[in-house]
Amino acid sequence: MDAARKLLGERSVAEISLRELAAEVGLAKSNVLRYFGSREAVFLDVLDEEWAAWNDRLDAALPAETPPEQVAAILADSLADAPLLCELTSVMIAVLERNVSLDYARDFKRRIMEHSARATQLIRRAVPALSEEDAGQFVTIMLIAVAGLWPCAQPNEVLATVQAELGLPGGPEFFRGTLRDMLLTQLRGLTL
Amino acid sequence: MDAARKLLGERSVAEISLRELAAEVGLAKSNVLRYFGSREAVFLDVLDEEWAAWNDRLDAALPAETPPEQVAAILADSLADAPLLCELTSVMIAVLERNVSLDYARDFKRRIMEHSARATQLIRRAVPALSEEDAGQFVTIMLIAVAGLWPCAQPNEVLATVQAELGLPGGPEFFRGTLRDMLLTQLRGLTL
Repeated sequence: MDAARKLLGERSVAEISLRELAAEVGLAKSNVLRYFGSREAVFLDVLDEEWAAWNDRLDAALPAETPPEQVAAILADSLADAPLLCELTSVMIAVLERNVSLDYARDFKRRIMEHSARATQLIRRAVPALSEEDAGQFVTIMLIAVAGLWPCAQPNEVLATVQAELGLPGGPEFFRGTLRDMLLTQLRGLTL
Repeated sequence: MDAARKLLGERSVAEISLRELAAEVGLAKSNVLRYFGSREAVFLDVLDEEWAAWNDRLDAALPAETPPEQVAAILADSLADAPLLCELTSVMIAVLERNVSLDYARDFKRRIMEHSARATQLIRRAVPALSEEDAGQFVTIMLIAVAGLWPCAQPNEVLATVQAELGLPGGPEFFRGTLRDMLLTQLRGLTL
Protein backbone atom coordinates (compact mmCIF):
# COMPACT_ATOMS: atom_id res chain seq x y z
CA MET A 1 0.00 0.00 0.00
CA ASP A 2 2.87 2.39 0.78
CA ALA A 3 4.32 1.64 -2.65
CA ALA A 4 1.00 2.51 -4.31
CA ARG A 5 0.81 5.73 -2.27
CA LYS A 6 4.32 6.70 -3.32
CA LEU A 7 3.44 6.26 -7.03
CA LEU A 8 0.10 8.05 -6.61
CA GLY A 9 1.94 11.00 -5.08
CA GLU A 10 3.87 11.37 -8.34
CA ARG A 11 1.35 10.53 -11.06
CA SER A 12 -2.36 9.98 -11.72
CA VAL A 13 -4.05 6.56 -11.44
CA ALA A 14 -4.29 6.23 -15.22
CA GLU A 15 -0.53 6.71 -15.60
CA ILE A 16 0.51 3.92 -13.21
CA SER A 17 0.81 0.48 -14.79
CA LEU A 18 0.68 -2.89 -13.06
CA ARG A 19 4.32 -3.34 -14.08
CA GLU A 20 5.40 -0.17 -12.22
CA LEU A 21 3.26 -1.03 -9.23
CA ALA A 22 4.86 -4.48 -9.05
CA ALA A 23 8.36 -3.00 -9.42
CA GLU A 24 7.71 -0.51 -6.61
CA VAL A 25 6.36 -3.26 -4.29
CA GLY A 26 9.24 -5.51 -5.26
CA LEU A 27 7.05 -8.38 -6.47
CA ALA A 28 6.51 -10.08 -9.81
CA LYS A 29 3.35 -8.93 -11.61
CA SER A 30 1.87 -12.40 -11.16
CA ASN A 31 2.33 -12.15 -7.39
CA VAL A 32 0.69 -8.72 -7.21
CA LEU A 33 -2.28 -10.24 -9.01
CA ARG A 34 -2.28 -13.27 -6.69
CA TYR A 35 -2.19 -11.14 -3.51
CA PHE A 36 -4.38 -8.21 -4.55
CA GLY A 37 -6.50 -9.55 -7.43
CA SER A 38 -5.91 -6.59 -9.75
CA ARG A 39 -4.08 -3.28 -10.12
CA GLU A 40 -7.42 -1.55 -9.44
CA ALA A 41 -7.94 -3.44 -6.15
CA VAL A 42 -4.65 -2.00 -4.84
CA PHE A 43 -5.89 1.53 -5.56
CA LEU A 44 -9.30 0.84 -4.02
CA ASP A 45 -7.59 -0.42 -0.85
CA VAL A 46 -5.78 2.94 -0.70
CA LEU A 47 -9.12 4.72 -1.15
CA ASP A 48 -10.59 2.69 1.73
CA GLU A 49 -7.72 3.85 3.99
CA GLU A 50 -8.09 7.43 2.79
CA TRP A 51 -11.81 7.52 3.67
CA ALA A 52 -11.19 6.06 7.11
CA ALA A 53 -8.50 8.67 7.79
CA TRP A 54 -10.70 11.49 6.46
CA ASN A 55 -13.53 10.43 8.78
CA ASP A 56 -11.08 10.53 11.70
CA ARG A 57 -9.98 14.04 10.76
CA LEU A 58 -13.61 15.13 10.27
CA ASP A 59 -14.50 13.76 13.70
CA ALA A 60 -11.85 16.07 15.17
CA ALA A 61 -12.58 19.10 12.94
CA LEU A 62 -16.40 19.22 12.85
CA PRO A 63 -17.91 20.28 16.20
CA ALA A 64 -21.44 19.39 17.32
CA GLU A 65 -24.16 21.90 16.37
CA THR A 66 -22.21 23.98 13.89
CA PRO A 67 -23.67 26.72 11.63
CA PRO A 68 -24.16 25.50 8.02
CA GLU A 69 -21.62 28.03 6.60
CA GLN A 70 -18.96 26.55 8.85
CA VAL A 71 -19.95 22.93 8.13
CA ALA A 72 -19.69 23.55 4.37
CA ALA A 73 -16.31 25.27 4.74
CA ILE A 74 -14.89 22.54 7.00
CA LEU A 75 -16.03 19.80 4.60
CA ALA A 76 -14.73 21.59 1.48
CA ASP A 77 -11.39 22.39 3.13
CA SER A 78 -10.91 18.86 4.44
CA LEU A 79 -11.63 17.41 0.99
CA ALA A 80 -9.47 19.94 -0.88
CA ASP A 81 -6.66 19.05 1.53
CA ALA A 82 -7.01 15.33 0.69
CA PRO A 83 -6.07 15.19 -3.02
CA LEU A 84 -5.47 11.44 -3.05
CA LEU A 85 -8.93 10.78 -1.57
CA CYS A 86 -10.48 13.09 -4.18
CA GLU A 87 -8.59 11.62 -7.13
CA LEU A 88 -9.42 8.03 -6.19
CA THR A 89 -13.07 8.98 -5.58
CA SER A 90 -13.22 10.64 -9.01
CA VAL A 91 -12.15 7.43 -10.77
CA MET A 92 -13.72 4.92 -8.35
CA ILE A 93 -16.94 4.15 -10.22
CA ALA A 94 -15.95 4.96 -13.78
CA VAL A 95 -12.63 3.12 -13.76
CA LEU A 96 -11.47 1.29 -10.64
CA GLU A 97 -14.59 -0.68 -9.76
CA ARG A 98 -14.77 -1.98 -13.36
CA ASN A 99 -11.82 -4.32 -12.94
CA VAL A 100 -12.24 -6.20 -9.69
CA SER A 101 -13.70 -9.60 -8.86
CA LEU A 102 -17.22 -10.06 -7.51
CA ASP A 103 -15.81 -11.04 -4.08
CA TYR A 104 -13.61 -7.97 -3.95
CA ALA A 105 -16.42 -5.65 -5.12
CA ARG A 106 -18.78 -7.04 -2.47
CA ASP A 107 -16.25 -6.55 0.32
CA PHE A 108 -15.19 -3.12 -0.92
CA LYS A 109 -18.79 -1.84 -1.14
CA ARG A 110 -19.39 -2.94 2.46
CA ARG A 111 -16.33 -1.02 3.61
CA ILE A 112 -17.42 2.09 1.67
CA MET A 113 -20.93 1.84 3.16
CA GLU A 114 -19.41 1.87 6.65
CA HIS A 115 -17.35 4.98 5.87
CA SER A 116 -20.43 6.61 4.41
CA ALA A 117 -22.53 5.74 7.48
CA ARG A 118 -19.88 7.19 9.77
CA ALA A 119 -19.66 10.43 7.75
CA THR A 120 -23.47 10.64 7.88
CA GLN A 121 -23.41 10.47 11.69
CA LEU A 122 -20.66 13.10 11.93
CA ILE A 123 -22.71 15.46 9.75
CA ARG A 124 -25.87 14.84 11.78
CA ARG A 125 -23.92 15.61 14.95
CA ALA A 126 -22.98 18.99 13.40
CA VAL A 127 -26.42 19.66 11.89
CA PRO A 128 -29.02 17.94 14.10
CA ALA A 129 -31.85 19.43 12.02
CA LEU A 130 -30.95 16.97 9.22
CA SER A 131 -32.94 13.74 9.22
CA GLU A 132 -30.99 10.47 8.95
CA GLU A 133 -32.21 10.11 5.37
CA ASP A 134 -31.32 13.67 4.37
CA ALA A 135 -27.88 13.41 5.94
CA GLY A 136 -27.27 10.18 3.98
CA GLN A 137 -28.37 11.90 0.78
CA PHE A 138 -26.09 14.82 1.59
CA VAL A 139 -23.09 12.47 1.90
CA THR A 140 -23.95 10.76 -1.42
CA ILE A 141 -24.19 14.13 -3.17
CA MET A 142 -20.95 15.31 -1.59
CA LEU A 143 -19.17 12.25 -3.05
CA ILE A 144 -20.75 12.82 -6.46
CA ALA A 145 -19.67 16.46 -6.39
CA VAL A 146 -16.10 15.45 -5.50
CA ALA A 147 -16.09 12.94 -8.38
CA GLY A 148 -17.39 15.50 -10.88
CA LEU A 149 -15.36 18.47 -9.63
CA TRP A 150 -11.95 16.95 -9.02
CA PRO A 151 -10.82 16.90 -12.67
CA CYS A 152 -11.52 20.69 -12.78
CA ALA A 153 -8.99 21.15 -10.00
CA GLN A 154 -6.25 19.66 -12.15
CA PRO A 155 -6.14 21.56 -15.48
CA ASN A 156 -3.23 20.73 -17.77
CA GLU A 157 -1.21 23.53 -19.37
CA VAL A 158 -3.57 24.04 -22.34
CA LEU A 159 -6.66 24.21 -20.12
CA ALA A 160 -5.02 26.50 -17.58
CA THR A 161 -4.01 28.86 -20.41
CA VAL A 162 -7.53 28.96 -21.85
CA GLN A 163 -9.09 29.45 -18.41
CA ALA A 164 -6.76 32.39 -17.75
CA GLU A 165 -7.42 33.95 -21.19
CA LEU A 166 -11.21 33.71 -20.93
CA GLY A 167 -11.36 34.62 -17.25
CA LEU A 168 -12.89 31.21 -16.49
CA PRO A 169 -12.66 29.70 -13.03
CA GLY A 170 -10.53 26.59 -12.57
CA GLY A 171 -7.84 24.98 -10.48
CA PRO A 172 -7.69 24.07 -6.79
CA GLU A 173 -9.48 27.22 -5.56
CA PHE A 174 -12.36 26.57 -7.97
CA PHE A 175 -12.66 23.05 -6.52
CA ARG A 176 -12.67 24.28 -2.92
CA GLY A 177 -15.00 27.25 -3.50
CA THR A 178 -17.52 25.47 -5.72
CA LEU A 179 -17.70 22.50 -3.37
CA ARG A 180 -18.20 24.81 -0.37
CA ASP A 181 -20.96 26.85 -2.08
CA MET A 182 -22.69 23.73 -3.38
CA LEU A 183 -22.62 21.98 0.02
CA LEU A 184 -23.92 25.09 1.78
CA THR A 185 -26.81 25.39 -0.69
CA GLN A 186 -27.60 21.68 -0.18
CA LEU A 187 -27.59 22.09 3.62
CA ARG A 188 -29.88 25.13 3.37
CA GLY A 189 -32.26 23.37 0.99
CA LEU A 190 -32.38 20.24 3.16
CA THR A 191 -32.99 22.07 6.45
CA LEU A 192 -35.76 24.41 5.22
CA MET B 1 -19.70 13.36 -36.90
CA ASP B 2 -22.35 10.78 -37.82
CA ALA B 3 -19.65 8.10 -37.84
CA ALA B 4 -18.56 9.10 -34.32
CA ARG B 5 -22.19 9.05 -33.15
CA LYS B 6 -22.68 5.58 -34.61
CA LEU B 7 -19.64 4.22 -32.72
CA LEU B 8 -20.64 6.05 -29.50
CA GLY B 9 -24.06 4.39 -29.72
CA GLU B 10 -22.34 1.02 -29.49
CA ARG B 11 -19.45 1.57 -27.08
CA SER B 12 -18.00 4.01 -24.56
CA VAL B 13 -15.55 6.78 -25.46
CA ALA B 14 -12.63 4.88 -23.93
CA GLU B 15 -13.31 1.85 -26.11
CA ILE B 16 -13.20 3.69 -29.45
CA SER B 17 -9.75 4.03 -31.01
CA LEU B 18 -8.60 6.55 -33.59
CA ARG B 19 -8.16 3.61 -35.98
CA GLU B 20 -11.84 2.60 -35.67
CA LEU B 21 -13.01 6.17 -35.91
CA ALA B 22 -10.99 6.63 -39.12
CA ALA B 23 -12.31 3.35 -40.56
CA GLU B 24 -15.91 4.38 -39.83
CA VAL B 25 -15.42 7.82 -41.41
CA GLY B 26 -13.66 6.21 -44.37
CA LEU B 27 -10.47 8.26 -44.00
CA ALA B 28 -6.84 7.44 -43.25
CA LYS B 29 -5.88 8.11 -39.61
CA SER B 30 -3.53 10.87 -40.78
CA ASN B 31 -6.43 12.63 -42.51
CA VAL B 32 -8.67 12.40 -39.44
CA LEU B 33 -5.86 14.09 -37.50
CA ARG B 34 -5.41 16.71 -40.22
CA TYR B 35 -9.14 17.57 -40.35
CA PHE B 36 -10.08 17.25 -36.68
CA GLY B 37 -6.81 17.65 -34.79
CA SER B 38 -7.29 14.63 -32.51
CA ARG B 39 -9.63 11.74 -31.70
CA GLU B 40 -10.78 13.71 -28.65
CA ALA B 41 -11.68 16.79 -30.74
CA VAL B 42 -14.14 14.65 -32.75
CA PHE B 43 -15.89 13.59 -29.54
CA LEU B 44 -15.93 17.16 -28.19
CA ASP B 45 -17.56 18.34 -31.43
CA VAL B 46 -20.30 15.74 -30.81
CA LEU B 47 -20.67 17.05 -27.24
CA ASP B 48 -21.05 20.60 -28.60
CA GLU B 49 -23.90 19.43 -30.88
CA GLU B 50 -25.48 17.47 -28.01
CA TRP B 51 -25.56 20.53 -25.73
CA ALA B 52 -27.06 22.71 -28.47
CA ALA B 53 -29.79 20.12 -29.12
CA TRP B 54 -30.45 19.70 -25.38
CA ASN B 55 -30.90 23.47 -24.99
CA ASP B 56 -33.41 23.42 -27.86
CA ARG B 57 -35.38 20.62 -26.19
CA LEU B 58 -35.21 22.40 -22.82
CA ASP B 59 -36.52 25.60 -24.42
CA ALA B 60 -39.58 23.61 -25.54
CA ALA B 61 -40.00 21.55 -22.34
CA LEU B 62 -39.39 24.10 -19.57
CA PRO B 63 -42.24 26.65 -19.27
CA ALA B 64 -41.85 30.14 -17.80
CA GLU B 65 -42.50 30.42 -14.03
CA THR B 66 -42.52 26.73 -13.15
CA PRO B 67 -42.59 25.29 -9.59
CA PRO B 68 -39.13 24.04 -8.47
CA GLU B 69 -40.31 20.38 -8.19
CA GLN B 70 -41.28 20.46 -11.85
CA VAL B 71 -38.10 22.27 -12.95
CA ALA B 72 -35.94 19.65 -11.21
CA ALA B 73 -37.95 16.77 -12.74
CA ILE B 74 -37.85 18.26 -16.26
CA LEU B 75 -34.09 18.82 -16.05
CA ALA B 76 -33.36 15.35 -14.63
CA ASP B 77 -35.60 13.63 -17.19
CA SER B 78 -34.15 15.55 -20.12
CA LEU B 79 -30.60 14.68 -19.02
CA ALA B 80 -31.41 11.01 -18.29
CA ASP B 81 -32.91 10.83 -21.78
CA ALA B 82 -29.68 12.17 -23.33
CA PRO B 83 -27.15 9.42 -22.53
CA LEU B 84 -24.61 10.57 -25.11
CA LEU B 85 -24.63 14.11 -23.70
CA CYS B 86 -24.16 12.70 -20.18
CA GLU B 87 -21.37 10.30 -21.12
CA LEU B 88 -19.40 12.94 -23.02
CA THR B 89 -19.90 15.43 -20.17
CA SER B 90 -18.62 12.85 -17.68
CA VAL B 91 -15.32 12.44 -19.58
CA MET B 92 -15.02 15.98 -20.93
CA ILE B 93 -12.67 17.48 -18.36
CA ALA B 94 -10.87 14.39 -17.10
CA VAL B 95 -10.17 12.86 -20.50
CA LEU B 96 -11.27 14.64 -23.66
CA GLU B 97 -9.99 18.16 -22.99
CA ARG B 98 -6.54 16.75 -22.15
CA ASN B 99 -5.69 15.93 -25.73
CA VAL B 100 -6.59 18.91 -27.87
CA SER B 101 -4.57 21.86 -29.18
CA LEU B 102 -4.64 25.29 -27.55
CA ASP B 103 -6.59 26.68 -30.52
CA TYR B 104 -9.16 23.92 -30.33
CA ALA B 105 -9.51 24.22 -26.54
CA ARG B 106 -10.02 27.99 -26.78
CA ASP B 107 -12.73 27.65 -29.44
CA PHE B 108 -14.42 24.74 -27.67
CA LYS B 109 -14.57 26.57 -24.31
CA ARG B 110 -16.22 29.55 -26.03
CA ARG B 111 -18.87 27.26 -27.53
CA ILE B 112 -19.50 25.58 -24.16
CA MET B 113 -19.78 28.99 -22.47
CA GLU B 114 -22.50 29.95 -24.97
CA HIS B 115 -24.46 26.75 -24.27
CA SER B 116 -24.07 27.37 -20.56
CA ALA B 117 -25.27 30.97 -20.87
CA ARG B 118 -28.33 29.84 -22.84
CA ALA B 119 -29.19 27.15 -20.27
CA THR B 120 -28.80 29.79 -17.54
CA GLN B 121 -31.37 32.02 -19.28
CA LEU B 122 -33.82 29.12 -19.75
CA ILE B 123 -33.59 28.30 -16.05
CA ARG B 124 -34.08 31.94 -15.05
CA ARG B 125 -37.16 32.07 -17.27
CA ALA B 126 -38.57 29.10 -15.32
CA VAL B 127 -37.42 30.35 -11.89
CA PRO B 128 -37.37 34.16 -12.00
CA ALA B 129 -36.47 34.28 -8.29
CA LEU B 130 -32.95 33.08 -9.19
CA SER B 131 -30.39 35.85 -9.68
CA GLU B 132 -28.24 35.72 -12.83
CA GLU B 133 -25.29 34.66 -10.69
CA ASP B 134 -27.20 31.94 -8.82
CA ALA B 135 -28.66 30.55 -12.05
CA GLY B 136 -25.16 30.36 -13.53
CA GLN B 137 -23.92 28.56 -10.42
CA PHE B 138 -26.89 26.20 -10.67
CA VAL B 139 -25.95 25.28 -14.26
CA THR B 140 -22.31 24.68 -13.26
CA ILE B 141 -23.38 22.41 -10.42
CA MET B 142 -25.83 20.55 -12.65
CA LEU B 143 -22.96 19.77 -15.06
CA ILE B 144 -20.71 18.65 -12.21
CA ALA B 145 -23.46 16.40 -10.88
CA VAL B 146 -23.96 14.86 -14.33
CA ALA B 147 -20.20 14.24 -14.60
CA GLY B 148 -20.02 12.60 -11.17
CA LEU B 149 -23.28 10.66 -11.38
CA TRP B 150 -23.21 9.30 -14.90
CA PRO B 151 -20.81 6.39 -14.20
CA CYS B 152 -23.25 5.23 -11.45
CA ALA B 153 -25.94 4.89 -14.12
CA GLN B 154 -23.83 2.37 -16.01
CA PRO B 155 -22.84 -0.43 -13.61
CA ASN B 156 -21.12 -3.42 -15.19
CA GLU B 157 -22.27 -6.95 -14.31
CA VAL B 158 -20.17 -7.25 -11.13
CA LEU B 159 -21.34 -3.88 -9.79
CA ALA B 160 -24.98 -4.53 -10.66
CA THR B 161 -24.80 -7.88 -8.83
CA VAL B 162 -23.30 -6.32 -5.69
CA GLN B 163 -25.81 -3.44 -5.75
CA ALA B 164 -28.69 -5.92 -5.95
CA GLU B 165 -27.25 -8.12 -3.16
CA LEU B 166 -26.66 -5.23 -0.76
CA GLY B 167 -29.86 -3.39 -1.66
CA LEU B 168 -27.78 -0.43 -2.86
CA PRO B 169 -29.21 2.05 -5.34
CA GLY B 170 -27.70 2.16 -8.82
CA GLY B 171 -28.44 2.17 -12.50
CA PRO B 172 -30.40 4.61 -14.68
CA GLU B 173 -33.18 5.24 -12.12
CA PHE B 174 -30.59 6.12 -9.46
CA PHE B 175 -29.11 8.64 -11.90
CA ARG B 176 -32.47 10.23 -12.68
CA GLY B 177 -33.75 10.25 -9.07
CA THR B 178 -30.54 11.47 -7.42
CA LEU B 179 -30.11 14.21 -10.00
CA ARG B 180 -33.73 15.34 -9.55
CA ASP B 181 -33.49 15.40 -5.72
CA MET B 182 -30.16 17.15 -5.78
CA LEU B 183 -31.33 19.83 -8.26
CA LEU B 184 -34.52 20.42 -6.26
CA THR B 185 -32.55 20.87 -3.03
CA GLN B 186 -30.19 23.22 -4.85
CA LEU B 187 -33.10 25.31 -6.21
CA ARG B 188 -34.69 25.48 -2.76
CA GLY B 189 -31.41 26.49 -1.13
CA LEU B 190 -30.75 29.17 -3.76
CA THR B 191 -34.24 30.72 -3.64
CA LEU B 192 -34.59 30.94 0.15
